[in-house]
Amino acid sequence: MAAPTEFLQFVDDNADAFIQRLADAVAIPSISGDASHRGDVVKMAEWLNNHLKAVGVETQLVDLGKHVMDDEELDLPPAILGRIGNDPKKKTVLLYGHFDVQPANKSDGWDTDPFTLTIHEDGRLIGRGSSDDKGPILGWLNTLQYHFQNNKELPVNLKLCFEGMEESGSEGLDDLVKKESQPGGWFDGVDCVCISDNYWLNTRTPALTYGLRGLAYFKLTVSGPGRDLHSGVFGRTVHEPMTDLVLLMSKLVDGQGNILVPGVDEMVEPPTEAEKAIYERLDYSIADVEQSAGGQIAISSNKVDVLMGRMRYASLSLHGIEGAFSGVGAKTVIPAKVAGKFSIRLVPPQTPELVEPLVKTYLEAEFAKLNSKNTFSLENLHGGKPWIADINHWNFEAAKAATRASMFLLLRRPEE
Amino acid sequence: MAAPTEFLQFVDDNADAFIQRLADAVAIPSISGDASHRGDVVKMAEWLNNHLKAVGVETQLVDLGKHVMDDEELDLPPAILGRIGNDPKKKTVLLYGHFDVQPANKSDGWDTDPFTLTIHEDGRLIGRGSSDDKGPILGWLNTLQYHFQNNKELPVNLKLCFEGMEESGSEGLDDLVKKESQPGGWFDGVDCVCISDNYWLNTRTPALTYGLRGLAYFKLTVSGPGRDLHSGVFGRTVHEPMTDLVLLMSKLVDGQGNILVPGVDEMVEPPTEAEKAIYERLDYSIADVEQSAGGQIAISSNKVDVLMGRMRYASLSLHGIEGAFSGVGAKTVIPAKVAGKFSIRLVPPQTPELVEPLVKTYLEAEFAKLNSKNTFSLENLHGGKPWIADINHWNFEAAKAATRASMFLLLRRPEE
Repeated sequence: MAAPTEFLQFVDDNADAFIQRLADAVAIPSISGDASHRGDVVKMAEWLNNHLKAVGVETQLVDLGKHVMDDEELDLPPAILGRIGNDPKKKTVLLYGHFDVQPANKSDGWDTDPFTLTIHEDGRLIGRGSSDDKGPILGWLNTLQYHFQNNKELPVNLKLCFEGMEESGSEGLDDLVKKESQPGGWFDGVDCVCISDNYWLNTRTPALTYGLRGLAYFKLTVSGPGRDLHSGVFGRTVHEPMTDLVLLMSKLVDGQGNILVPGVDEMVEPPTEAEKAIYERLDYSIADVEQSAGGQIAISSNKVDVLMGRMRYASLSLHGIEGAFSGVGAKTVIPAKVAGKFSIRLVPPQTPELVEPLVKTYLEAEFAKLNSKNTFSLENLHGGKPWIADINHWNFEAAKAATRASMFLLLRRPEE
Repeated sequence: MAAPTEFLQFVDDNADAFIQRLADAVAIPSISGDASHRGDVVKMAEWLNNHLKAVGVETQLVDLGKHVMDDEELDLPPAILGRIGNDPKKKTVLLYGHFDVQPANKSDGWDTDPFTLTIHEDGRLIGRGSSDDKGPILGWLNTLQYHFQNNKELPVNLKLCFEGMEESGSEGLDDLVKKESQPGGWFDGVDCVCISDNYWLNTRTPALTYGLRGLAYFKLTVSGPGRDLHSGVFGRTVHEPMTDLVLLMSKLVDGQGNILVPGVDEMVEPPTEAEKAIYERLDYSIADVEQSAGGQIAISSNKVDVLMGRMRYASLSLHGIEGAFSGVGAKTVIPAKVAGKFSIRLVPPQTPELVEPLVKTYLEAEFAKLNSKNTFSLENLHGGKPWIADINHWNFEAAKAATRASMFLLLRRPEE
């Protein structure tokens, strides 16, 4: 289903104004992770709120309270709740987006000022937040403006939830969602959610996210000496915590990405031929993976295996060691207490609760084999369940149709 | 051979003055590693030089040039060269010591001001440098004062070399030693060296150092991605450098301290029964090792094995990883480039030159087994040869007799 000609004409007629509006939004450095920019996040909320009201959206700015960042107590920026339409015969769609951004400096490698929207010669609009996530929010604003100015009825009731803390852990959002999901709350009666903050498969192909891997993050601590020791004096004299820790960490995952904790990989159903065929068809190659990784290091030469490693299998990554020598140069220390950090990306039916006892039992058994007099402990630092949706649900069918229509629009433009 | 009564009487008569002189030396914060205290190191050199001249030593302060520390060019403190006696019928002994100290603050855990010499109730003299190494230097000064004041002839010719940079890598000393060891130089004609800066075996028993382990320090780098990656996106998709590095590091040493690099441990002769008997007789227990390590983590319950691990076998310690996540908390990074640091303490006949090719060949073979597309490299950051002396040399025989005489003196004092 292509978009109506009248709508396409509206887009063309207003392209310069839309781009200017994005430039205005990009120019507000609404960096949620930097306390000195907290006022800009609030400014961005007010700017967006005014633009939403101007196209007929009923809104409210919600005070989310305070939080502590870098030892400073700060007011959280307000969230924007909005609604337009209240027809009981229509579906009600909740839109999510965020108007805060990550920090950006030219010294990070930007060719242009990150807070000045710049049109690249290939047509791309370059600026902090232009894709994540001010651009998608303004896409909704542009669409609502079309309906508002032309008295077009929306095919659904819309609810809006735009936040200003997404890049800083979405602080305050959980409580807001729980409160407004109660009967009579702002989100009461919502039939589906559309999250306007997602990936493309590569630079050519959009994607609909219908699942996310979960996480179980572990800290494995080994300690023994009362203080850091000198290897010239104590080497081969005591059980060194680093030796034990590295031996344990080496038992977690092999060089081909297989998880060595018994029972973890085994929990996941093997793919069916039909599922493999989906990966085979995806417009996503090993070259795409290697380009985005910045190195020719794909774990397999089989495209389906690489994509399934990314999307439908669990993975285990070793992140680093706390307490060991991590500086440049050479230091002959025997660190007294070291903690290895690793995490497992989970897929259904894995959960942090199911995986943690497997990891603990296995590492305890491996540590016992070392005959070490050091002390060993395992903590689960944080976690999250994996999520998978039914790609045949009407929400995804609608999203597929909308994505195709957008692609028609995109593909049309270079021919002008 | 106990010390002569006349000498013991002199020590008793002058004890208060000797302690005051040590207090005066401790009060000069001659911290060589702190640029703001460089003037104090120079002051300490001048103080010591004056005291040496006062007891009949011919001295010179030697300008060692400049060096760069923390991006600042500084004058090196002068070394003191001294000599007393020139009888061709006597042996010539070179004394080495240093008059600089490590930094010390009460916040480091000192009970008293580190630069104020304090007499503990058990008789110990507490102050920075009182044992390392101002005390030993002043021991020589006290002895020379006895001979000077009483017109006693020294049984040997003495040469002195006292430096002010020992705690900061002995900068400038190598060049000085090479220059003065030439024919006609200050050290020409030296028959043996006495280094007044060594350990006791424990708090009860003095020791004569007749060997030192050498060192080969390695940096093992694995890299692959062009930048740090997010484990949620790339986990099980690419060869992760941390996985490869931890697997390689786990192949270097086992939990019992055995070096797994083929050929390294094998290079060392097994101990004879006579040698084992020396370790068995040493007044040094597993409890001593564990007390100084601050934990009950001795690698064996066999005292001889623990002592030989410390003193006559090579050891391999894993120090840490550069480039991985080393902070507190949880970060789901796949680090792009990580470097493991480890070192091997060497014993004869091992040398850095002999050991490095064994390590390199072994790690290359182990890396090949991983079938990884990452890049691997090994650097030898620095090294030093091991050293062992003949404990039956007349210099060590003299040192044994002198140590025994000192112990008689020490043991006599509590009875007073």
